Amino acid sequence: MATQIDKIVYLLSKIPGVGPRSARRALLHLLKYREQLMLPLAEELEKSAKLIKHCQICNNIDDNSPCSICLDNKRNQKIICIVENISDLWAIERGKIFNGAYHVLGGTLSVSHGRGPDDLSLKTLASRIKTDQVEEVIIATSATLDGQTTAFYITEFLNKETQIHITRLAYGIPVGAELDYLDDSTLEASFISRKAF
Amino acid sequence: MATQIDKIVYLLSKIPGVGPRSARRALLHLLKYREQLMLPLAEELEKSAKLIKHCQICNNIDDNSPCSICLDNKRNQKIICIVENISDLWAIERGKIFNGAYHVLGGTLSVSHGRGPDDLSLKTLASRIKTDQVEEVIIATSATLDGQTTAFYITEFLNKETQIHITRLAYGIPVGAELDYLDDSTLEASFISRKAF
Repeated sequence: MATQIDKIVYLLSKIPGVGPRSARRALLHLLKYREQLMLPLAEELEKSAKLIKHCQICNNIDDNSPCSICLDNKRNQKIICIVENISDLWAIERGKIFNGAYHVLGGTLSVSHGRGPDDLSLKTLASRIKTDQVEEVIIATSATLDGQTTAFYITEFLNKETQIHITRLAYGIPVGAELDYLDDSTLEASFISRKAF
Repeated sequence: MATQIDKIVYLLSKIPGVGPRSARRALLHLLKYREQLMLPLAEELEKSAKLIKHCQICNNIDDNSPCSICLDNKRNQKIICIVENISDLWAIERGKIFNGAYHVLGGTLSVSHGRGPDDLSLKTLASRIKTDQVEEVIIATSATLDGQTTAFYITEFLNKETQIHITRLAYGIPVGAELDYLDDSTLEASFISRKAF
């Protein structure tokens, strides 16, 4: 018969980044701070599971749908940045790089993961582009094989459905990087996309 | 105003081993598995905070007090192993090294952390040694300065209060280690405690 300790250690170890050993350490810490941390965490986890929802427009997560980014009229809603995941959206927001709207794909096209075009909610994106008179779509998928396949698919799809101006993020040398340590593909991309000085 | 996402990310980031960035990743994973992981985790955290208790005899944690180790009559209750923390007890149990009982100090004597002799529950240990006719106490505190100070203090205290046979874990070369990489103190300890071949 599993004890309560076994049960909670098992569940804690299912959190990404927490293995079985750190789950035990986490449990001891939580038990030490039952009132200040463990019980509030339990309560907020339950509340979060019920409250946090996906935005019906862009598929971001927030307390409300539409999300605060889609409702923010200080942002340029005429530019949509397409990202694979919410964590990519967060990375761009952290950098304060972009002041437009988003479309979160929720992953890439992927044969190995069985994800096809229907999983990317591209139809809602196309109708959003038409009704909101969107002027530019920036494709910000990963520079991986799946990410690039997805970018090509989206470009083709949008070219068929709309007349939207489509761009993608530049490939090149990461700022601060030394040439010596770069992989060949990045180096090649930086040559191909070289700019006048 | 903090959103629900901010609140739960903050609490998740207070779990040892989970920083702010991995807390966000953890949240996305939990939201993906709301029914299978997030809600059960919330429920079991609350149950654990209420159910798991410290053993009144040895200070271990378990669903019940006395704990299953103290109640196990297949274990030799006449030998008590003194450890600093529950995680040390778990390490010894994982190794299936020891079949006696434990006394968990809950830390060491420490000037910097303001922990004095009263925090080690040594009086209950002494009375336990007398009433249970314990035959040996193994001191298994860490080989750190605080751990060794604590070991000396406990030895003195028990010598005054009882006639118990006190041992401590051997210092020496870790199994599998190369001499070349050992620190001087360990090497010296292994010379001092050398044994006939």
